[in-house]
Amino acid sequence: MGVPDSSLWLYDFVSADTDGQVHQVERMVVSAQTRFQKVDIYQTPRFGKILTLDNRVQSLELDEFIYHEAFIQPAMVAHPNPTSVFVIGGGEGACLRELLRHNTVRRALMVDIDGELVELCRQHLPTWHQGAFDDPRSELRYEDARAYVAQTSEKFDVIIVDLSEPAVDSPAYFLFTVEFYRMLDKVLAPGGRIVFQSDAPAIHASGIWSTTVNTVRQVFPHVLPYVVTIPGFGSEWGFTLASREPLPPMSAAQVDAVLAARMPAGSLRFYDGVTHQRLVSLPLYMRKKLEAESRFYSDSSPPEVEWGN
Amino acid sequence: MGVPDSSLWLYDFVSADTDGQVHQVERMVVSAQTRFQKVDIYQTPRFGKILTLDNRVQSLELDEFIYHEAFIQPAMVAHPNPTSVFVIGGGEGACLRELLRHNTVRRALMVDIDGELVELCRQHLPTWHQGAFDDPRSELRYEDARAYVAQTSEKFDVIIVDLSEPAVDSPAYFLFTVEFYRMLDKVLAPGGRIVFQSDAPAIHASGIWSTTVNTVRQVFPHVLPYVVTIPGFGSEWGFTLASREPLPPMSAAQVDAVLAARMPAGSLRFYDGVTHQRLVSLPLYMRKKLEAESRFYSDSSPPEVEWGN
Amino acid sequence: MGVPDSSLWLYDFVSADTDGQVHQVERMVVSAQTRFQKVDIYQTPRFGKILTLDNRVQSLELDEFIYHEAFIQPAMVAHPNPTSVFVIGGGEGACLRELLRHNTVRRALMVDIDGELVELCRQHLPTWHQGAFDDPRSELRYEDARAYVAQTSEKFDVIIVDLSEPAVDSPAYFLFTVEFYRMLDKVLAPGGRIVFQSDAPAIHASGIWSTTVNTVRQVFPHVLPYVVTIPGFGSEWGFTLASREPLPPMSAAQVDAVLAARMPAGSLRFYDGVTHQRLVSLPLYMRKKLEAESRFYSDSSPPEVEWGN
Amino acid sequence: MGVPDSSLWLYDFVSADTDGQVHQVERMVVSAQTRFQKVDIYQTPRFGKILTLDNRVQSLELDEFIYHEAFIQPAMVAHPNPTSVFVIGGGEGACLRELLRHNTVRRALMVDIDGELVELCRQHLPTWHQGAFDDPRSELRYEDARAYVAQTSEKFDVIIVDLSEPAVDSPAYFLFTVEFYRMLDKVLAPGGRIVFQSDAPAIHASGIWSTTVNTVRQVFPHVLPYVVTIPGFGSEWGFTLASREPLPPMSAAQVDAVLAARMPAGSLRFYDGVTHQRLVSLPLYMRKKLEAESRFYSDSSPPEVEWGN
Repeated sequence: MGVPDSSLWLYDFVSADTDGQVHQVERMVVSAQTRFQKVDIYQTPRFGKILTLDNRVQSLELDEFIYHEAFIQPAMVAHPNPTSVFVIGGGEGACLRELLRHNTVRRALMVDIDGELVELCRQHLPTWHQGAFDDPRSELRYEDARAYVAQTSEKFDVIIVDLSEPAVDSPAYFLFTVEFYRMLDKVLAPGGRIVFQSDAPAIHASGIWSTTVNTVRQVFPHVLPYVVTIPGFGSEWGFTLASREPLPPMSAAQVDAVLAARMPAGSLRFYDGVTHQRLVSLPLYMRKKLEAESRFYSDSSPPEVEWGN
Repeated sequence: MGVPDSSLWLYDFVSADTDGQVHQVERMVVSAQTRFQKVDIYQTPRFGKILTLDNRVQSLELDEFIYHEAFIQPAMVAHPNPTSVFVIGGGEGACLRELLRHNTVRRALMVDIDGELVELCRQHLPTWHQGAFDDPRSELRYEDARAYVAQTSEKFDVIIVDLSEPAVDSPAYFLFTVEFYRMLDKVLAPGGRIVFQSDAPAIHASGIWSTTVNTVRQVFPHVLPYVVTIPGFGSEWGFTLASREPLPPMSAAQVDAVLAARMPAGSLRFYDGVTHQRLVSLPLYMRKKLEAESRFYSDSSPPEVEWGN
Repeated sequence: MGVPDSSLWLYDFVSADTDGQVHQVERMVVSAQTRFQKVDIYQTPRFGKILTLDNRVQSLELDEFIYHEAFIQPAMVAHPNPTSVFVIGGGEGACLRELLRHNTVRRALMVDIDGELVELCRQHLPTWHQGAFDDPRSELRYEDARAYVAQTSEKFDVIIVDLSEPAVDSPAYFLFTVEFYRMLDKVLAPGGRIVFQSDAPAIHASGIWSTTVNTVRQVFPHVLPYVVTIPGFGSEWGFTLASREPLPPMSAAQVDAVLAARMPAGSLRFYDGVTHQRLVSLPLYMRKKLEAESRFYSDSSPPEVEWGN
Repeated sequence: MGVPDSSLWLYDFVSADTDGQVHQVERMVVSAQTRFQKVDIYQTPRFGKILTLDNRVQSLELDEFIYHEAFIQPAMVAHPNPTSVFVIGGGEGACLRELLRHNTVRRALMVDIDGELVELCRQHLPTWHQGAFDDPRSELRYEDARAYVAQTSEKFDVIIVDLSEPAVDSPAYFLFTVEFYRMLDKVLAPGGRIVFQSDAPAIHASGIWSTTVNTVRQVFPHVLPYVVTIPGFGSEWGFTLASREPLPPMSAAQVDAVLAARMPAGSLRFYDGVTHQRLVSLPLYMRKKLEAESRFYSDSSPPEVEWGN
């Protein structure tokens, strides 16, 4: 009969108010307000579950493996022997999952301010964490990452900075600044690698990406920005790998050799030596944008989302 | 900062695939599949809860009083002494609520095929039923209304046919036909009144309304079609009052006198004598459409939703 | 193959930002910026052409007959012998069309500030004006209505105030106030009738309607608010008829007799005596809202769109 | 006042009916029906003009340089001395524009079935063609490409197959089959390179991409599938480079050297040696999908859009 139906749609206007993504929603899995943010999980027909924080899409079940392998594996592979890893944020547990694949890891500390979020993810997003929260090498702490970093004397081989968008009232607002990055530098062990989630290098919208990369450059002498496409975001996404020591290019064979030494064959679905070449080879127009960028974020000038530049 | 958000929207394309309503959704209250249909309840900012069955909007918390008073009160008022009432469908309990306001009522039988739906409404839609399910005059039966009507020997003063859209696979598909209406005629007591939900007299879309009214005319000699505007549907909605005996026009004063005799002042928010004049005074173009209508539904030619005529 | 398409949709969020209408658009007929406002005309599959001013839906080809007959005919019928009529606004020409049906009319003055808009309507909306601009009884003036009213010494039997939404920067902003209504009172002939477009009595949204009606009440002792449903707006719409003299109720027969004396049978599609009863018989909850309204608009407190009250 | 507006949105559901892109539209530039297809051009705030054919987004002004450089440059660079080039389709003129940058080119033949489309693009999309249609090396023919290929005896150094989606009734329906590819093989000069637009390797949707690549493999022994992200499509897009002779990997330096020899520095915005590495280094999961693909298109089994595999 072709009777038209009602239907439920999730609009994702994260990069700009004039252009966005829509996803049909089958049902809402959970909708909660934690002490820090609004957490919603939706069930969709093709992308599986979708997690939003404060109404902004964070992760989709179908392609989170792309996001999380792209985020975690290059930093881990770039370190010759990562034994201790520090995850800032990372509530879904998929950062932990990825780094724990490396048989060199002895300790994985995760500090997320929002314990309620972590509990919701533990319960509702099992394909994300896959038990990583319960790995004996994992330690979870629910506190402000900046305060934690300020007082700890521990140092880490790899640091993963997995913070959500720096909206003004979000928990992450002051975690995108040069001052915080200098604090992170102090907890990075000699030879350590640090990687930052760096927003979308959207050609039509935000300048957050290039400014974030340039903020990392203010603190770390060796910086490797790289970019991956996340189908469910409908956009490319930037990450920034940094180090006090040089980050020499790695060939596909070198990357594959490291992975083969540290985890069973077939562990990864997105990342390997060839994929690595894709990630680090930025399109010309992005490289030019980075070269031209002179802005950076500081505590007195934290990120504000600008569109159209 | 004006960061654009993600947001959830309910699209209601019930009358046509080219024009519809949208409602922002705050959260999903419940999403269930009963043996008979998909039941969803959404929370919205302005219309409160919205109930959909098989993805079609049925009722909105803010304005269901308009729908249910307009549906029930004219038939009750048109009967001089309604003691027994039969509701077919009516899962939300608001039909029961409205008819139970009349102090003449001794028995209210409701037959809805979907007991799971009624349970969900009882739990999640308290402002609809307002306890009507638990009124000692109410009896609920969960079975096929057509089968029930076929075997009962009881007769009722008022019959309320509150069926959802006749989609092909819906429980209501064969409850919109002249054959079923003849069965209903047999359970209507002498002097009885029967009222049918009759779809939208949408100028841009469906011919269901006029065909439904004409189907009632095949069985009942006295028919009063009337139309109300439901803000949350974004459209007008038709009901059809019928009787074997004449249905003389009622003045505003007559309607008000009946209401005053049967329920406390202030019980109703939408319906009274003046509102009655609005309901029964159809716009000229609707009257012409009814006059010109020759189609009717039968078991061999049940409703198919036609657009554009 | 069912390949999903791209498609163009017009979102009409005029009453509230959380609930609205959508219409599929086939193509854009014209998009222009006049000296006063943005004018767009869209072609749609079911509603025909849609006119928007400053991005707000004004009129739809399929159902503008409902809007314009409901707006014009009650005031014309309520006057025993309307010879001179004054239209303020009314750019599409359909107000002129309706009042010129009355064979009593000798003069129809229309003052619209936006001559470019009128030209666009003349060219692209022929089913609206149907040649009314060229009727020898019509006079068009393109100037500020308030200034015109301030200096004219002419008086009119019927005045029609067809102004678009009083947005802050719109041409109509200071044409919704008690001061302007007092000016209009002075150009109304003895026994004259005046009718105001009065916004939507939306249950979920605006308080403009009741405040507008109450503003009319500050100036005119006899006021008849009435309400019609416009399918393409997805909502009811208010008009307010007013007079210095009493406005006795008109029966259906009285209305039909006036129409029969003034125009050929079959001229109208929406309005007649029965429809008149529908228009003027407001639902109980609307009458209560009007009774409770104490606000009114003045030059020092002009309309601001308020939602949710 | 915050009055909510109406607004116009273009929905792009090209890859799947459950997930898509939306773009706000300022106005429609042109809407035409040629003998072969529906052509619409929209003006948008951030992506500039958007071209759709048969309601499917084809190209966006802001990022068409990415699409067209990625499509044309790898094939041109892979040929040591491309003098004659054959473009099948390519109505916007941007394929011509890109290949004419190479100073080796003496002849550029473009065969597009739809001359009306080319005229519309010439008039309304000047930033696409940038005068390429008028280059003395260009020849345009408006006829069926398959028929043209069947009868020509000319051979070309580079062939560019720029066909829109193979919808059942589209002009391109029988231009995605192994039979047509064999015909193309016959017009490819010794040492020639051919490149095919190959649809989206969408993880959530279509299997067109992998099947198209595998169809090319049935005909050409050396095949290089590569993938680029088009921001305005919200997705990655596949192209397939093929040759009868081996296609040895090109280093970034080799690519840059070819470009430097053939066009002025700064000619390109997207493509260079580093970008080339990105294009040809496919993510692991895409490589696995290609390895597993055994389907191909033939005249007796032409493409049907399948979702979800």
